[in-house]
Amino acid sequence: MKTKAVFYHAGCPVCVAAEQNIAAALDPTRFDVEIVHLGRAPDRIAEAERAGVKSVPALVIQRAVYHINFGAALADLKK
Amino acid sequence: MKTKAVFYHAGCPVCVAAEQNIAAALDPTRFDVEIVHLGRAPDRIAEAERAGVKSVPALVIQRAVYHINFGAALADLKK
Repeated sequence: MKTKAVFYHAGCPVCVAAEQNIAAALDPTRFDVEIVHLGRAPDRIAEAERAGVKSVPALVIQRAVYHINFGAALADLKK
Repeated sequence: MKTKAVFYHAGCPVCVAAEQNIAAALDPTRFDVEIVHLGRAPDRIAEAERAGVKSVPALVIQRAVYHINFGAALADLKK
């Protein structure tokens, strides 16, 4: 059974680079990676917040949150 | 030919978690991941700095630096 990983981003340049180099680099035999663009799916911001995401891009693997560089604060996506 | 990735850390709890969940999650068929503990290999701090690393843990893939959460500033490792 694969581990679920969710990569939250907002389409910013920092996000796109991280998506291409980190999210896409995970081992596909062990991880199912879902890419969530919070700008296009604002209804999932609350879910990201509950997972502990403070800024994007961020990768959530099981219950651990990894903020990768800094593209935008989650709070700013709600404006 | 595999892509070289270097994961710099300093043995801090944040670093260890990131190593287990991010560095170890990269696809082994595409990446050769080198783990560098800067506390034990201080002679490589200058190399990390030149690569653009500001804090650890950080993953360098080709010329891109990804700071993952925040464990310690590179400057503090030089003290």
